[in-house]
Amino acid sequence: MCELLGMSANVPTDICFSFSGFLHRGGGTGPHRDGWGIAFYEEGGYREFRDPYPSVDSPIARLICDYPIKSRVVISHIRHANVGNVRLANTHPFTREMWGRPWCYAHNGQLEGWQTLPLVFYTPVGDTDSEHAFCWLISELRQAFPRPPDEADVLWKFLHGLCEYLRGLGVFNLLLSDGEYLYTYCSTKLAHITRQAPFGEAELSDAEITVNFAEHTTADDVVSVIATQPLTHNETWQHLMPGELLVWHDGIIQARYSSNSSST
Amino acid sequence: MCELLGMSANVPTDICFSFSGFLHRGGGTGPHRDGWGIAFYEEGGYREFRDPYPSVDSPIARLICDYPIKSRVVISHIRHANVGNVRLANTHPFTREMWGRPWCYAHNGQLEGWQTLPLVFYTPVGDTDSEHAFCWLISELRQAFPRPPDEADVLWKFLHGLCEYLRGLGVFNLLLSDGEYLYTYCSTKLAHITRQAPFGEAELSDAEITVNFAEHTTADDVVSVIATQPLTHNETWQHLMPGELLVWHDGIIQARYSSNSSST
Repeated sequence: MCELLGMSANVPTDICFSFSGFLHRGGGTGPHRDGWGIAFYEEGGYREFRDPYPSVDSPIARLICDYPIKSRVVISHIRHANVGNVRLANTHPFTREMWGRPWCYAHNGQLEGWQTLPLVFYTPVGDTDSEHAFCWLISELRQAFPRPPDEADVLWKFLHGLCEYLRGLGVFNLLLSDGEYLYTYCSTKLAHITRQAPFGEAELSDAEITVNFAEHTTADDVVSVIATQPLTHNETWQHLMPGELLVWHDGIIQARYSSNSSST
Repeated sequence: MCELLGMSANVPTDICFSFSGFLHRGGGTGPHRDGWGIAFYEEGGYREFRDPYPSVDSPIARLICDYPIKSRVVISHIRHANVGNVRLANTHPFTREMWGRPWCYAHNGQLEGWQTLPLVFYTPVGDTDSEHAFCWLISELRQAFPRPPDEADVLWKFLHGLCEYLRGLGVFNLLLSDGEYLYTYCSTKLAHITRQAPFGEAELSDAEITVNFAEHTTADDVVSVIATQPLTHNETWQHLMPGELLVWHDGIIQARYSSNSSST
């Protein structure tokens, strides 16, 4: 299995604190030594960094900690290979352009029967179940919506249905974004926390680092972090329910879809 | 105008020496302060790095110099903005997946009437003439060849025709790759050098750095570097002719197409 880390914020925010703990799971406190990647949606565009080596030893991961990149949406992934060799083409997140936006995707879990998921517009570069499922998912979205629908809710409901279908094939915990919204879908485990005023101190679980967010924020900041497992041990994280899709925007939950019902 | 740097090699090779000179053109010896990017095709996949700031001051550019990434094909670009603001989404190289391969593209020049080039499968994320032309070019390729043709020459001739069409719209110096081949097309300026045994010393034009390639290579290595302007001052660089497309593979010219004739 792998580890997921996501962020949604209402102001450009760096993820250095969370990432400093997260990267230790890639060969330090966790066994996920098979590559890692991180994608940033910034005010001016999109960029990503990746390495096929353990994040705990990676000079590129160190750069991410030392060079604060401010963004509103971040998706990161640390890989523990199951399907597909350890190589750059198999590191998450994966990206494809749809509707003139870079869509970014990271997956935790393992699927069965993924090889027969039909592909239309997009083809995997590597050989993982994860990338194949992404190419299928975004192909389905594009077939259903050649252009972005006027009502976002229509898109989100459809996306929830696709996630539910993939959950039927195995374990499918998901982070997905088009830069505007962050979609988090839970198959087995995904936890989140929203930090806003009054800000307090947080202590990482994976490294001896403490931060007082009050020193780094303004009263209006809202920053949510989503991860496969809580990253701090002195805060209360919420857990998603299996089958639940949360749509994040500007750090808050804009819509929520569960297996049996939905609300926005 | 911008600066282009490309590499094709028959063994995984780092581009640290050439890039150390090249990055000085981004705000140091050259005026191209509006962002930069570099893409590597490695044995295991593809990755890229980019920054919307001058390369000469960029911590990410320094990392590229200090962390040798070995690859067979590299494309890099330093931007001097003309069409489109200075922002991440407008930095080259641009990438799109076609046929399960990441296609990477960088452009030097400026086009007229590019807004009406029709797009089919791909849509620009930013607002440059360069990215629009790329989306058009790769859409045309995909329409003509839904799958890779058996005869590569058919594809290359078609690509040369597309480049010639774009040259008719202005200045179009190009680096393009699918990871296997490096395509270099000259509209006004593009120079190349092939280094192979017996290797000698090279001195950068843009920084006081000298390298003795004999110390870093084996007798079978073939490494070619392509740039808008020669990067060293003690070697003889060849200049492409306007309208000429060179197809590089493993460091050598596999095919050559000119405005009036072609040969492979």
